[in-house]
Amino acid sequence: MREITVPVPGRSYPIRIGGGLLTSLGEQCRQLGLNGSVALVYDAALQERFVPVAMRSLTEAGFQTAAISVPSGEGSKCLEQLGALYAAFSAARLDRHSTVIALGGGVVGDLAGFAAATYLRGISLVQCPTTLLAQVDASVGGKTAIDLPSGKNLAGAFYQPHLVLVDLDTLQTLPLREIRAGLAEVIKYGVISDPELLTFCESNCAALLNHQEDALAQIIARSCEIKADVVGEDEKESGRRAILNYGHTVAHAIETVAGYGTYLHGEAVALGMLAAGRLSVKLCGWSEAEEARVRQALEACGLPVRLDQPLAREALLAAMQLDKKTLNGQLRFVLAKQLGEVEVRNVAETDVAAVLPVIEAS
Amino acid sequence: MREITVPVPGRSYPIRIGGGLLTSLGEQCRQLGLNGSVALVYDAALQERFVPVAMRSLTEAGFQTAAISVPSGEGSKCLEQLGALYAAFSAARLDRHSTVIALGGGVVGDLAGFAAATYLRGISLVQCPTTLLAQVDASVGGKTAIDLPSGKNLAGAFYQPHLVLVDLDTLQTLPLREIRAGLAEVIKYGVISDPELLTFCESNCAALLNHQEDALAQIIARSCEIKADVVGEDEKESGRRAILNYGHTVAHAIETVAGYGTYLHGEAVALGMLAAGRLSVKLCGWSEAEEARVRQALEACGLPVRLDQPLAREALLAAMQLDKKTLNGQLRFVLAKQLGEVEVRNVAETDVAAVLPVIEAS
Repeated sequence: MREITVPVPGRSYPIRIGGGLLTSLGEQCRQLGLNGSVALVYDAALQERFVPVAMRSLTEAGFQTAAISVPSGEGSKCLEQLGALYAAFSAARLDRHSTVIALGGGVVGDLAGFAAATYLRGISLVQCPTTLLAQVDASVGGKTAIDLPSGKNLAGAFYQPHLVLVDLDTLQTLPLREIRAGLAEVIKYGVISDPELLTFCESNCAALLNHQEDALAQIIARSCEIKADVVGEDEKESGRRAILNYGHTVAHAIETVAGYGTYLHGEAVALGMLAAGRLSVKLCGWSEAEEARVRQALEACGLPVRLDQPLAREALLAAMQLDKKTLNGQLRFVLAKQLGEVEVRNVAETDVAAVLPVIEAS
Repeated sequence: MREITVPVPGRSYPIRIGGGLLTSLGEQCRQLGLNGSVALVYDAALQERFVPVAMRSLTEAGFQTAAISVPSGEGSKCLEQLGALYAAFSAARLDRHSTVIALGGGVVGDLAGFAAATYLRGISLVQCPTTLLAQVDASVGGKTAIDLPSGKNLAGAFYQPHLVLVDLDTLQTLPLREIRAGLAEVIKYGVISDPELLTFCESNCAALLNHQEDALAQIIARSCEIKADVVGEDEKESGRRAILNYGHTVAHAIETVAGYGTYLHGEAVALGMLAAGRLSVKLCGWSEAEEARVRQALEACGLPVRLDQPLAREALLAAMQLDKKTLNGQLRFVLAKQLGEVEVRNVAETDVAAVLPVIEAS
């Protein structure tokens, strides 16, 4: 088992990565001092295999437990599902000593995390991410959110979990498309902070796409280390944390305009990184060789490098105006200066419009 | 103008109390460094008189401003209205530098406060309470919430405003029933912390009910001082802050079971204090003379001392089980030992059931 500590003001918490960790979920919760009742909020797709493992572990550790299912897919990250979780929490008589455990991908983690952050004005939270994307990104750092019709992740809270438990077994049955989507965020860490991680992905692409546990454990641990480092420095994104949004301004716009769930978040991030890359070359003097290298890495991982349907440029630009980094109507992008070094800067809408053809459907 | 400072970790903020303060709202926001666009969320009942005053002040100070109306009444403290505010914030293109100003009673303050706490994971908030109850209680201390069908204030956030602006002019047109409801919370402060405040209410009852500004300013300032002191010590209610909930366990149950809006919150608190008072006599040896004195004060203020419709005892007890203070199914009450001194303790459901007749409809 690998363990990484995320330092946040007032309290730090562990990320634990290893095979079969869900079998000791209950015990680990006890060790962290969580003693109230538990609501296990899970992605409906996990019902057969991993929910019983988690429930057995919690029951054996003596927890009073309710299991609450959330329909699969980005569509569940909405106000209606939030209300459904609140109602289920009330029915399960959760109190201020209770814990919400999120078992699933980014959708369940973000939704259940936001519900835990706000039910009774905040109860304890444990994240058990089951997709590569959630393991390398969504479950770490305390961002929780729901989508609004007007844009992705527009309502939410900064709310740190007590534990992030990454059971590598969950990746063995994860569809290849989901593995690929997760690799987009790993490549992102390579671009913003760690060229060696990019090299590792390039060299181990086949192993990663074949669900090889050692290679996956390596990129998950390294990604979590980078994220923990950034979040420890700037929990609430007043500064450096914004670099984690590399590729995300365009990605969120694509997800909003195409309709939530059309693209997996990682797929949209791959496209967003290509647009941000082009902007970086034009505005920050990023080398075209490095830009091409990232593009090749994304292609090698089987990620999309073009939209597979036309999306109106005006609609994408309008959606970007609602990006959380936008200030006073001014778009702000994370752009690359060289591999491992990025900066946040204002970008004119015309410059963004000019690079969108790089990802438009052919 | 009177000013009270609320000290919370990392930042303190002022409560300002005086006549005509809304005319300088914009200027005061500028002085506090709030420089982004503004969404004024207001109770629809204030449209004619106070909204124009606030909007003029904001516009004169150069703010880009959107005005967003919320229907009057407790029914607006719900998930649907939260979603409507989010949509209005998106339409107004609020960004991370924007400020939400809540102009209204506790309903608008709680709802708009929760929306501000969560939109883009938190933007700035200014509270302009316009009811006595909100001025002495709801707008101070950073509790925001919505009601759920299962119970009052069950989802929310601790989120401190940048400023609480109490314009005493708003009380001049406030219906007498609302003044009375506010006095219930003032009497509560007397019971939990300051017998002199209770004496002041007893001696100045007629002046208060006649909207006399000096007397009102006095009780608002003293109530805010007490609350600021408690909240400064225990922002997130891990200990002492719970004493502010004196009378509230039964009050919330009454509001939930009778249907939100049937009783004003302060009316329910008056009834809740009578039940808590009876429990205090039975379990804490509180003197019957002091109990009777509080009852008389409530009656003198024209507050209800009995339910005006029968409510099933079982339904009230079931609603209390969802009270946020309840732990492991154990009801917890704030009880009085003597005027100015209260404690939080576990209370058996049978003891609660035994005192409910004191407030039951005759």
